[in-house]
Amino acid sequence: MTTGRLTLPVQQGMDDAILELIHRLGADAVRNSDGTELPELVHQLAAKVYATYFVGRGDQAWALSHPDQTTRLFLMSERTPALSDEPLFVHVVDGYLDTQVVPDTGCDPTRWWQVIDRTTGATVEPGAWRIEGDGADAVVIIGQPEAGHVYTVNFLARQVWDPTQMYNYLTNNWHEDPARVREQPYDVRYPETWDHVRQALATWLGEHPEVDVVRFTTFFYHFTLFYNDQQREKFVDWFGYSASVSVPALEQFEAEYGYSLTPEDFVDEGFYNSSFRVPSRQFLDWIAFTHRFVTQRVRTLTDMVHASGKEAMMFLGDNWIGTEPYGPHFADTGLDAVVGSVGSAATCRMIADIPHVRYTEGRFLPYFFPDVFRPGGDPLGEAEESWLSARRAIVRSPLDRMGYGGYPSVALQFPEFVDRVEQIVDEFRELHDRTGGERPATATFTIGVLNCWGELRSWQTHMVAHALWYRRAYSYLGVLESLAGLPFDVRFLSFEDIADGVPAGIGVLINAGGADTAFSGGRHWAEPRIQAVVRRFVAAGGGFIGVGDPAACPGDGACFQLSDVLGVDREIGWSLSTNRYPRLVEDHFITADLTGDFDAGESTPGIVPVAGDVDVLKTDGGGDIQIAAHGYGAGRAVYFSGLPWSPDNNRLLLRALHWAARDEAGYDACVASDPRVEVAHYPELGLVLAYSMALEPVSTAIRAGGQTWTVDLPGAGHTWLTVA
Amino acid sequence: MTTGRLTLPVQQGMDDAILELIHRLGADAVRNSDGTELPELVHQLAAKVYATYFVGRGDQAWALSHPDQTTRLFLMSERTPALSDEPLFVHVVDGYLDTQVVPDTGCDPTRWWQVIDRTTGATVEPGAWRIEGDGADAVVIIGQPEAGHVYTVNFLARQVWDPTQMYNYLTNNWHEDPARVREQPYDVRYPETWDHVRQALATWLGEHPEVDVVRFTTFFYHFTLFYNDQQREKFVDWFGYSASVSVPALEQFEAEYGYSLTPEDFVDEGFYNSSFRVPSRQFLDWIAFTHRFVTQRVRTLTDMVHASGKEAMMFLGDNWIGTEPYGPHFADTGLDAVVGSVGSAATCRMIADIPHVRYTEGRFLPYFFPDVFRPGGDPLGEAEESWLSARRAIVRSPLDRMGYGGYPSVALQFPEFVDRVEQIVDEFRELHDRTGGERPATATFTIGVLNCWGELRSWQTHMVAHALWYRRAYSYLGVLESLAGLPFDVRFLSFEDIADGVPAGIGVLINAGGADTAFSGGRHWAEPRIQAVVRRFVAAGGGFIGVGDPAACPGDGACFQLSDVLGVDREIGWSLSTNRYPRLVEDHFITADLTGDFDAGESTPGIVPVAGDVDVLKTDGGGDIQIAAHGYGAGRAVYFSGLPWSPDNNRLLLRALHWAARDEAGYDACVASDPRVEVAHYPELGLVLAYSMALEPVSTAIRAGGQTWTVDLPGAGHTWLTVA
Repeated sequence: MTTGRLTLPVQQGMDDAILELIHRLGADAVRNSDGTELPELVHQLAAKVYATYFVGRGDQAWALSHPDQTTRLFLMSERTPALSDEPLFVHVVDGYLDTQVVPDTGCDPTRWWQVIDRTTGATVEPGAWRIEGDGADAVVIIGQPEAGHVYTVNFLARQVWDPTQMYNYLTNNWHEDPARVREQPYDVRYPETWDHVRQALATWLGEHPEVDVVRFTTFFYHFTLFYNDQQREKFVDWFGYSASVSVPALEQFEAEYGYSLTPEDFVDEGFYNSSFRVPSRQFLDWIAFTHRFVTQRVRTLTDMVHASGKEAMMFLGDNWIGTEPYGPHFADTGLDAVVGSVGSAATCRMIADIPHVRYTEGRFLPYFFPDVFRPGGDPLGEAEESWLSARRAIVRSPLDRMGYGGYPSVALQFPEFVDRVEQIVDEFRELHDRTGGERPATATFTIGVLNCWGELRSWQTHMVAHALWYRRAYSYLGVLESLAGLPFDVRFLSFEDIADGVPAGIGVLINAGGADTAFSGGRHWAEPRIQAVVRRFVAAGGGFIGVGDPAACPGDGACFQLSDVLGVDREIGWSLSTNRYPRLVEDHFITADLTGDFDAGESTPGIVPVAGDVDVLKTDGGGDIQIAAHGYGAGRAVYFSGLPWSPDNNRLLLRALHWAARDEAGYDACVASDPRVEVAHYPELGLVLAYSMALEPVSTAIRAGGQTWTVDLPGAGHTWLTVA
Repeated sequence: MTTGRLTLPVQQGMDDAILELIHRLGADAVRNSDGTELPELVHQLAAKVYATYFVGRGDQAWALSHPDQTTRLFLMSERTPALSDEPLFVHVVDGYLDTQVVPDTGCDPTRWWQVIDRTTGATVEPGAWRIEGDGADAVVIIGQPEAGHVYTVNFLARQVWDPTQMYNYLTNNWHEDPARVREQPYDVRYPETWDHVRQALATWLGEHPEVDVVRFTTFFYHFTLFYNDQQREKFVDWFGYSASVSVPALEQFEAEYGYSLTPEDFVDEGFYNSSFRVPSRQFLDWIAFTHRFVTQRVRTLTDMVHASGKEAMMFLGDNWIGTEPYGPHFADTGLDAVVGSVGSAATCRMIADIPHVRYTEGRFLPYFFPDVFRPGGDPLGEAEESWLSARRAIVRSPLDRMGYGGYPSVALQFPEFVDRVEQIVDEFRELHDRTGGERPATATFTIGVLNCWGELRSWQTHMVAHALWYRRAYSYLGVLESLAGLPFDVRFLSFEDIADGVPAGIGVLINAGGADTAFSGGRHWAEPRIQAVVRRFVAAGGGFIGVGDPAACPGDGACFQLSDVLGVDREIGWSLSTNRYPRLVEDHFITADLTGDFDAGESTPGIVPVAGDVDVLKTDGGGDIQIAAHGYGAGRAVYFSGLPWSPDNNRLLLRALHWAARDEAGYDACVASDPRVEVAHYPELGLVLAYSMALEPVSTAIRAGGQTWTVDLPGAGHTWLTVA
């Protein structure tokens, strides 16, 4: 048994059992959770103590006495048709939960409210409409609408209930608990509130000598999350900046950037600049502006924490907007650590790869809550799945610490779960101990993931809410999930990053996503310079892998602007008169390990060959292409109509990457014959780690370091091999 | 047994059997087919004699002696990337069949050839490229291309092989027959050829006193059909005007319209103005221009036919371009009749509804060819299917005549087939005899099918080749196939037709098609006027039925611009952060007869509710909406994600149309309880016809004329009921 690298939750009233668990699992840190308190004797535990700390909510007295300083967000009313030319009444808060958001009728509505004719796209002059009623009663009356046109009202709203506290409140029926209140957030943009926040932290630091690590949950601005009038989620975007606005901030922005933002710049036709939208210049500017502000203010707080002899840790979630761990100013925060929830290999990498902190910690699943830890629940299965997902990523980019959350009392009732967690944390520590921080070997070339966001959204593509399965995203997300555990260095590139040429070292570019989204690139593919850069890159020997709607931007005779590179294009109803004769190729390097059916997920329909020499590797039942490979000049391109996560698809991508880079030999040098097993090679240590994603035993050949072994792995098993 | 209304093919060398067949089936006309001759004794048959006549091909001596007067077409080279800035060579005929098309290097290439940079969309100045080589050897050399850009060459080509003769030639291995030649078409735009065509017809008319009906197959311009270098179809568009061009015609166009057309106006990015493309003004002008020319020239020929005491009949196919039976000048042709192939109810209506002719004839399937009439073939089954499809249309809009084609000798070897045909033609004549031309009652309101083409493409939507099943079209075509046999008056409306309001009498508008195609409407939905007209129409009590991507034109917060009317919209990756709570309704008037699964065909993915009050009637396994119903002001809207033809979907559409028109009572007044049975009511005759699409017996209640019956119908059966 080993110890360390593990954080466990504690709770009041069960210190003996906690002590036993802490000892057994070798934890060296303990924490409380949202809604729980640290036990009084926590300082007697031989471990570091983390305490959650809420900067922008929790002090209800302050919030209620400064209602003008609550956080704001821009919202859009329902799309309201004018069925006649009579005056049109729009009750703007319809469909929203008026206990969460209240229309801000106190601001200058000619500036911060906006009526748009969505049929023409034109903004209606403020003189042509008026507001009647205050707050939740506010109605906008458009005097002379055009009959048959649809109108919306963008309005500034006060956010009177913090969305995460709200979620916990609604989920846990806190309305039954008279001690609970609906916590109203406040905005540090207002000097008074900022002073108060600093003073409150100073007081708290002084009052909590038992705390070693301040676990900020989190800082100032919550991601976009608002509810409908049935108290159900109406809109959730883990990356959303909608709730980072305020009149002072907007005025400051105008002063800095020389132009003013309108409500529509945030409302974005009702899509609120979701990360799937091709981002506007205005929105990118706002992110940069907010990122600078937030990181500077965070620095003030971390300085205070350090001055009190504690560490500052950020929870990557809740009010994390503006911190941007992959943004240019993150180093300025002065944070010691980041902790985040591990829902997949990709989210694990998202945490583990964060630069400029001394350590990262992943909070593993399942959360110790009664929803899983109940008769009929499967906490053991969830732990296994969580570990198998995360281990692939940890091997490539080791998290420094693991952790769990919730109530240890419920976990203790499932001894076989505790047994398995004990094995998992031991395996985690073993990985650190044996490798001593050395990373396993990667391919000689780097993978570039090309989308509108680039580095800022490293390991954060195709996510709506944190690691939540989504029908419209999972077929693309498999690419990232695979990459998170494959032996490649990965860079996330924006179109700006490649505008003057693909950066040196990149062997294969990946463009994966739905048409006209930020992840495939939308209008950026209409730029001749971008197209030309990629064509020249591939023609000169580079690789290009497209998934879904790569380079999609219909026009000038193609849907995929790089259809000549890919050898395939998407039929969108314009070339139905063109006959297609796909040339099927049964045996190919890319599909050599695919023995069963190919799972393309939602797939992308209508993929047709547009080059005579494109090798079609898979089609669906109706003849649409699902996998294709194409030589282009000295380079190669591969197309997948979808690539949801699975060990088989992981293997397909691994092979496709090596094939596209003309590096079949690199593939052969370090691989398991069974796609369910992955191999990490540590050349300097002369070690090879083979680890299985299968729950059943696997027998497989392993090639690495010029040697071949045959190994038998139990379900989820791993083994260390020594290179002679 | 009855006689008349039937045309049968004859062939040489079997007159006794033919006579017996003619007598038995009651045929009153006989015909030859392409590649067959009339028997010498044909004039002794007690029947009218049809003879095929080819205007624009067949006189090979003329064609070869006037190679400059062959028909032309505009083609586009392959998309050719410049992988460097070295001169780029484009062998323009690559991928084409050089025995069909030959680049016309004799014209002025600075005017009739065009090099386009498809990466920028810009036309490359003629001075920047040159042609080397003649005809099939022609290569365009672009001196200084932009590296990484894709280029195409639009070029004028001579069409040296008639596509239909080519099809017959390739299919029937005529290259083995030394008597066969590859027939080269010639163009009546050239005065010499026009004179020759008239003289040849005059001569032929004089030499064929035995012929009663000249069956033109057809006139001057073949629909677009070109082959690839493997002699397989490369592009086929039954509506294509690509092969109607010539330098004299283009010059005449410029003189008439005041602007000149470019090759790109025809090449259309390589889509060649397929009828799925939202048509350009230039293309619509060209259709109008060619339609006037063709109908005027046809008139000259039909006048000659009439002067010789014969009738002029047009076969609706092959070289029919420019005749446009639903165009404004079709009456000018002077044609007596149109005959066409019946492949479905929709194609049957396309023939039967043609105005300005004295009679229409449908050529039924199967064709008497050995591909079907062989051991193991199922000619009886094909005849049954053909009849069941067509009968629905014939009841609503009776064809005047039926016909068959091919070799009677092969059909005679299948006596059970002849037995069934005898029943079918008797049933056909019975329908005419009992109704005396009266049409069955239709609903009190008219259905408007709204697309970019309007009346010109009546019963011709979503077709690539004649009635050919197509994966990307069948999910929409079911709408037309249903309408062809449903008790409604149907109008085909263009966006221009509704620009000032939906025409009086229209009760329900249907908009069915894929996004950004001519059939859904594409950019026309960005026009505020169009949106407003439809909104006001529905709000005032009208009905709107959308299938697939109705009103799709993404922008201003909606994919379907009428999402507020439909209550649903299509998720195209922009609103993934919006939570959706579809409200399922189990019992609804529209789905009352749907007992099994709903077949949405290819369906349209990502349909989500955008109105709280939309009734979701069906979803797919993953939660996407497939059928929805929504009240809007005083009107109603219905959405289907696809509606391939089936009796169940036919019933869904029937119900949806009545529901959308708020005419549930009209539905109940005339219907069979079993969806496989349809009912036609002839109020003036006091008759009701019930007919079954099922091959198995059906017992069903029938309501019509205020009465109810229970009837038992055998497979494919029908019965006449008398209203008391």
